[in-house]
Amino acid sequence: MMRAEIIAVGSELLTPDRLDTNSLFLTERLNEAGFRVHFKTVVGDDMDDIERVFRAALVRSDLIMIIGGLGPTEDDLTRPAVARVLGRRLRIDSDVIAVIRMRFAARGVVMPQINERQAQVIEGAQVLGNPYGTAPAMWIEEKAVKIALLPGPPRELQAIFLQSIQPRVEACAGDRRLARRSLHVVGMTESEVDSLAAPVYRRYRDVETTILASSAQISLYLSQWVSPGEEPARAIELASRLQHVLGNAVYSTRGESLEAVVGTMLREAGHTISVAESCTSGMLAMRMTRVPGSSDYFLGGVLCYGNDVKKSLCGVPSDILDRHGAVSTEVAEALAAGVRRACNSSLGLSITGIAGPGGGTAEKPVGLVYIGLADQHGSESERRIIPGDRESVRERAATYALAFLRRFLMDKSHRALGTGAKAQ
Amino acid sequence: MMRAEIIAVGSELLTPDRLDTNSLFLTERLNEAGFRVHFKTVVGDDMDDIERVFRAALVRSDLIMIIGGLGPTEDDLTRPAVARVLGRRLRIDSDVIAVIRMRFAARGVVMPQINERQAQVIEGAQVLGNPYGTAPAMWIEEKAVKIALLPGPPRELQAIFLQSIQPRVEACAGDRRLARRSLHVVGMTESEVDSLAAPVYRRYRDVETTILASSAQISLYLSQWVSPGEEPARAIELASRLQHVLGNAVYSTRGESLEAVVGTMLREAGHTISVAESCTSGMLAMRMTRVPGSSDYFLGGVLCYGNDVKKSLCGVPSDILDRHGAVSTEVAEALAAGVRRACNSSLGLSITGIAGPGGGTAEKPVGLVYIGLADQHGSESERRIIPGDRESVRERAATYALAFLRRFLMDKSHRALGTGAKAQ
Repeated sequence: MMRAEIIAVGSELLTPDRLDTNSLFLTERLNEAGFRVHFKTVVGDDMDDIERVFRAALVRSDLIMIIGGLGPTEDDLTRPAVARVLGRRLRIDSDVIAVIRMRFAARGVVMPQINERQAQVIEGAQVLGNPYGTAPAMWIEEKAVKIALLPGPPRELQAIFLQSIQPRVEACAGDRRLARRSLHVVGMTESEVDSLAAPVYRRYRDVETTILASSAQISLYLSQWVSPGEEPARAIELASRLQHVLGNAVYSTRGESLEAVVGTMLREAGHTISVAESCTSGMLAMRMTRVPGSSDYFLGGVLCYGNDVKKSLCGVPSDILDRHGAVSTEVAEALAAGVRRACNSSLGLSITGIAGPGGGTAEKPVGLVYIGLADQHGSESERRIIPGDRESVRERAATYALAFLRRFLMDKSHRALGTGAKAQ
Repeated sequence: MMRAEIIAVGSELLTPDRLDTNSLFLTERLNEAGFRVHFKTVVGDDMDDIERVFRAALVRSDLIMIIGGLGPTEDDLTRPAVARVLGRRLRIDSDVIAVIRMRFAARGVVMPQINERQAQVIEGAQVLGNPYGTAPAMWIEEKAVKIALLPGPPRELQAIFLQSIQPRVEACAGDRRLARRSLHVVGMTESEVDSLAAPVYRRYRDVETTILASSAQISLYLSQWVSPGEEPARAIELASRLQHVLGNAVYSTRGESLEAVVGTMLREAGHTISVAESCTSGMLAMRMTRVPGSSDYFLGGVLCYGNDVKKSLCGVPSDILDRHGAVSTEVAEALAAGVRRACNSSLGLSITGIAGPGGGTAEKPVGLVYIGLADQHGSESERRIIPGDRESVRERAATYALAFLRRFLMDKSHRALGTGAKAQ
């Protein structure tokens, strides 16, 4: 297995405000090319510290990606630090200066003197053009170790990586690649998923399984090292066994979002939909319309935050609101039916609940949410008690609404909504 | 300046799926206590690698925070790796076992044998109770270096830090603390902010200035090292000068969100508001209702994704839609006025635009967005061309709508909307 490590340079990455996120992009690409990332380090704009980290990396890694510290200011120390550790000289490259000058000229600006620093090239390095910025990247081979210097802005880093680094990395890659499979689950807690999945994936020691949970959705990532061109047979087998034990809760094995999966189901069934959102106030609609082309089935909806709007725009009768309260089965179903009529869609989906922090009672606690769904035959609803703070109650409520809709659309018998009656 | 470093242990943090986010929490607390974080390292579940990083940290840092690797499985190697480098023994602590047993018993479960590993304590370490999990934390003093071992789950880490680590860190802190100020700006690009701010903050070498941009909002963070109890006079002076050059674009100096600032202005002015969202489809409303207590002024709205809903629920006349198209000044203002009437609010705010990726034309390109605002006197709108992909067009459009509303509410003359006329 070839060993790669990532060094992010920049004092701003050592503050409470910023994380290095470039390493996620690089890790995925490096894994695909057969490198395991075994260290990630963040170091400030300090000559000694950068040298120290780079010197340690040189003796333990086959490939070193150094991100950042390539700007024009005196705080940008990656070039001199790397040159010093390698015992190489820095020289001003006139071709690079010419490119930087042109880049400024294209914006009608004369290159400031300070930017000449960005034309400093380490002796023996291959200079890699930067389509989006003035800092050129570099590729250095030091005995068996390969070193890439990349600028920090993600757009620049990604473009340079794909254009110039990827082919070089692949040329020196090992004989193993990391192949990945994934399963995405909704409607179960992380511990429910793990209690079903762990007995299965524990038997696959050669497949690395990672479980990630966010907003009531759980993703399982399976990784297996294979030879180039080889199928990850064990990961595929494990994915299929996990799908068997997790059943219908698996909504995707290809990484699409839940809203994209539900959108495809709506389109295929020829449905249109509208939503009435109370406590979530737009979160569900925002997710459904994140999918390009969602205008094929998503017509619109009502943000019925206040009770007056529930009555005026969704036609919920006053006496239902008075009798059952805004957070109730009855109002959830009336909202779904009402918004369906108001927007003239074939389905209506609603959420009403108490997101907190205030507004809870012993009978109706913070986190109580009702989801309603209506079609031309009738309506149904479900009740959830969702733990967490205001934002996570809202986020999970939107996820549960999508999951509720998905279960309805999956039902092969096309059961009509309402009163449990079947209408084949 | 005391030097701290953070080591996060766990192979899952070296995959493309996960970032170490605990270090942001720790960095903020450590800065406040007078430590500068000078290295952050992520290392996998590998004995040699953990030892290597920890050994390097011991000779360069005053305080080392090691996160993770304290679970009950054989992959959890932080305890033995640290013990080995320090030349100390691991012993099973019977008090710790008793606590873990009780924790399982409280859930009606017998402690699995494997969890006994979590009772392994490094000789001479102070054991720190974990209120939320079975892994105890440890505090070790090795000559002048202080070492904390903390579990990875954020809830456990934060509770243990605040309860047991913070007082210990403060007791050994240096004589300087990092004090922070911030300014938050809307309605300018990052480069506009920087071209105004840089000539000012560059003259304050003793204040560290970081600029962060996200979704059309820019934050400037100013940090200054001061003695305990001392006011950060230079940072305060810089903040005031920056506020002067950035003017009304500064919406907060205390870190509240834009939607919270606008919400306070609405409440103070006695306004109520409703929204009509086309391309953003809930993003604006979702943000406005993220603020607890927003039901005081936010009444609801319409998700007018399709043209039929623009007509039926917001009362936009067909001929305006036909003549000007859905993405136009006229429709933006008609939506704002229409939703205001439909929801019976004092103000109506609307967004209509082309988020892409499809739907653009030469005349009306992807990224074209109109924002409309209506009150009892009339309506106004603004036109924006927003760069970026579908999600960033939508996010920025919502921010611009809040900024537009804020400018209206700031106007001390209470100018009436529409036709530029003033109505004092």
